[in-house]
Amino acid sequence: MVDCCHGGKIIVFPEDGSHWVNMQVILRKLHSHGHHLTVVRSFRSWYIKESSPIYTSITITPTHAEDVSAEFFKTLVERSLALRKMPTFLHFFEQQRDVTTVLKKFHGETLKLISTMLEDSPLMRRLHDAKFDLMLTDPAFPAGVLLAHYLHLPMVYNVRWLNAGEAHMAIAPTPLSYVPMYNSLLHDHMDVLQRVENFLRYLVSLLQERFVILPVYEELIKTHFPPGSDLLSMQRSADIWLMRVDFVFEFPRPTMPNVVYMGGFQCQPVQPLPKELETFMESSGEHGVVVMSLGAMVTALPREITEVIAATFAEIPQKVVWRYMGERPSSLGNNTLLLEWLPQNDLLGHPKTRAFVAHGGTNGIYEAIYHGIPVVGLPLLFDQFDNLLRLQVRGAARTVDLATLTSGEFLSALNDILNNPSYKQNIQRLSELHHDLPLSPLDSAIFWIEYVMRHKGAAHLRPEANNMPWYSYHSLDVVVVLLALCGTSLWASFFFCKLLYRKISKRKLKVD
Amino acid sequence: MVDCCHGGKIIVFPEDGSHWVNMQVILRKLHSHGHHLTVVRSFRSWYIKESSPIYTSITITPTHAEDVSAEFFKTLVERSLALRKMPTFLHFFEQQRDVTTVLKKFHGETLKLISTMLEDSPLMRRLHDAKFDLMLTDPAFPAGVLLAHYLHLPMVYNVRWLNAGEAHMAIAPTPLSYVPMYNSLLHDHMDVLQRVENFLRYLVSLLQERFVILPVYEELIKTHFPPGSDLLSMQRSADIWLMRVDFVFEFPRPTMPNVVYMGGFQCQPVQPLPKELETFMESSGEHGVVVMSLGAMVTALPREITEVIAATFAEIPQKVVWRYMGERPSSLGNNTLLLEWLPQNDLLGHPKTRAFVAHGGTNGIYEAIYHGIPVVGLPLLFDQFDNLLRLQVRGAARTVDLATLTSGEFLSALNDILNNPSYKQNIQRLSELHHDLPLSPLDSAIFWIEYVMRHKGAAHLRPEANNMPWYSYHSLDVVVVLLALCGTSLWASFFFCKLLYRKISKRKLKVD
Repeated sequence: MVDCCHGGKIIVFPEDGSHWVNMQVILRKLHSHGHHLTVVRSFRSWYIKESSPIYTSITITPTHAEDVSAEFFKTLVERSLALRKMPTFLHFFEQQRDVTTVLKKFHGETLKLISTMLEDSPLMRRLHDAKFDLMLTDPAFPAGVLLAHYLHLPMVYNVRWLNAGEAHMAIAPTPLSYVPMYNSLLHDHMDVLQRVENFLRYLVSLLQERFVILPVYEELIKTHFPPGSDLLSMQRSADIWLMRVDFVFEFPRPTMPNVVYMGGFQCQPVQPLPKELETFMESSGEHGVVVMSLGAMVTALPREITEVIAATFAEIPQKVVWRYMGERPSSLGNNTLLLEWLPQNDLLGHPKTRAFVAHGGTNGIYEAIYHGIPVVGLPLLFDQFDNLLRLQVRGAARTVDLATLTSGEFLSALNDILNNPSYKQNIQRLSELHHDLPLSPLDSAIFWIEYVMRHKGAAHLRPEANNMPWYSYHSLDVVVVLLALCGTSLWASFFFCKLLYRKISKRKLKVD
Repeated sequence: MVDCCHGGKIIVFPEDGSHWVNMQVILRKLHSHGHHLTVVRSFRSWYIKESSPIYTSITITPTHAEDVSAEFFKTLVERSLALRKMPTFLHFFEQQRDVTTVLKKFHGETLKLISTMLEDSPLMRRLHDAKFDLMLTDPAFPAGVLLAHYLHLPMVYNVRWLNAGEAHMAIAPTPLSYVPMYNSLLHDHMDVLQRVENFLRYLVSLLQERFVILPVYEELIKTHFPPGSDLLSMQRSADIWLMRVDFVFEFPRPTMPNVVYMGGFQCQPVQPLPKELETFMESSGEHGVVVMSLGAMVTALPREITEVIAATFAEIPQKVVWRYMGERPSSLGNNTLLLEWLPQNDLLGHPKTRAFVAHGGTNGIYEAIYHGIPVVGLPLLFDQFDNLLRLQVRGAARTVDLATLTSGEFLSALNDILNNPSYKQNIQRLSELHHDLPLSPLDSAIFWIEYVMRHKGAAHLRPEANNMPWYSYHSLDVVVVLLALCGTSLWASFFFCKLLYRKISKRKLKVD
């Protein structure tokens, strides 16, 4: 193996929220390998701290930047719960409208951020002179991508989403016949009507990309990049795509040579719990403990739903640890401990833990797989429904609909997960498969980041497809040539036959 | 990581010739891991020995089996040289005719082999009772695939070819716009006419599969397998595909989650040379040594060509080690040492070695990459032209046409490779990339073989596509439904308009 490039200079353009939580896991490891990290953040950032022992930061202060705060998510959740009570067809349209609104808002903020940077000449000069070896970015929103191209840097993605869909769609062939679109609640085995739905959803995501996302950056690209530059090509040109999934979780689908799967990289071996929490866990006896957390959505549940949940927990013989903020539910039982923050990974890895009640964010799902804990899903937004579906079809989770939640339903799901051994067996099997890798997902991620630095890119892993216009990629020009050839030969045959016929007729005439 | 399953029972169905040379590398490693190996071989086998310290063998003696000997290859080479003097168009057709002949011959022999086995009830009972954990096979010809399905065994491929094409074609989407077909001498950057050619070559390979290969096994499958069984589905259902390429060598293209790349697994760190050979190498001084070998094709060159080669070698200041059998060329120089067998890997890794004159088989190409030695290519058959092309477009090789070889041409190619430093630099870069992996290709192959044994398959990595009829896979049924929907709504709109028109006309009539 070529020697590692210690002391590389990496510029990091992360996304905020839970995306940052997992980006940090990578940054800590890169820092421990001796690399120098510079993180770009907005002054509005909720999660990304300005000062850190592992990185230096560059804070961008765009004018008119809006706050995308917890309040915004609360509204989204309320809207999502309302939508789920609508008839399917209406639900689909309203949902797509919401997606469009969210895309507009976030891309609008992204544009402000990156414009502010590109217009700040002294900053750009400073970044240029810093001679970074690599851009590490989450391309859900393309500020990092644009900056990397501006600075001519090799690029590694920490990625799951890109533009209006799942990141694979941008680089790998995606047969819509068995690759379900996101937010569809479809899986890889679809009947013909489901495949029609899948196709229509694909069309919608194409339209969102074409008419909602791309126009946001058109002006900026015209101003700051060479003529002919376009966002899609820039996005496709990343050297390595570190995907935050693996095929224990995701349905098998076509992939590309420069895609590296690091699903579950954020999971860690168990650390001992704080003393009081350990005592609480042990006090659960043979019944064990249920852990509940909604991750970054922790404050998002409406009051009446938290009451139902609290009342249901009060009925089970298990103890419950619940990550909770806000007013204490009146129906809370003695068996339930509310905490504002949980050492979630260590709790899930605790031998007393029997079930995980979760919203279905990828981080939590992977912790459940890592530690082999079956899940009761309470999905709220975004990919959470689909994430939980993936556990469900493998018999490792049950999902309940928060929009119509009753205590009976939640209790029945909880009891099923706690008492039917098949859920535990199934998630244990997923856990075994997930752990059975030649290299841990995090080590693999670090290897490929350093690989790109060692070789100043990984052009040999990027397909020629990236450089082709869409009509060539889809062989439409070949079809035109073949049709022209067929046409010409048909015409030639016809012409020849006509000629022959005339000759014969003339000869006949003469003979006659 | 889950503990390895030591002492697994593996049945191996290899191909002969150079395919066996590399299969053996894997078997040696599996044996050193404590697995029990049973190798199935034909009594006609040239390479696969009946007795070995690392495996027990089952020898099959089909009636009427024909000998596919060195003589056969000699004829093929002569024919290939003759074809290369023809005009392109004729060359293509004659070449495809030859491919068809070879396919017919080899599949015919494969059928005899597997029929003999399946009809031998005591043998099949014995194999069934042996309770193997795994079938490891090279599926270039499908005897191993059929046997694995008959015995209901998980299956790992050591693979590059399958039916009439490259193995990826069987499982991964293959955009013909940038994935060149084999034997085409095209690369991933094609103009529109080359893409038309590529498309036509694809059609030919489909026809060969459909009308030459599949019919061979139809009767056998009807007799020995459940109704509805078909060869293509059986072939696609392998758990892991260990591909004998990597993307340092192959052009980047779509792949699948159960494809593992092990290109170069057969290469080894250098062992010291025998004393006389070492003395010969050292005697070359600053000029160094040229190594020449045609691998399994070693006796295939016509007399007049070996004379040209020998005479050219006599003119260069380097020493030459040439793997050669048969009568000594009259023009041989003092600087050239003929040997019936070479420690090729150790010679290529020797510091005195400057160039490798090779026919372009994958084993030799990967040894050149592994040790960073530039290549002068003398391709003869099969994939050798394309293999060399892959080095050539990366500036690491030059190919000369044996059909029209002159001493001047060969000398110019040799001198270019020896004296122009770019070839050495380019292959050194490929070598660095090739070595820069988290796990060696051989260790990776062994890991995934043992993985399939540990988990009794790898169903979670196999795409749903394998279980779909072709019209669903290609969404043709979705197109039909969408057309029907469009049709119906057009008809409904038309009908509605007509109705409206009539109503209005009637009303008008009444009003009037």
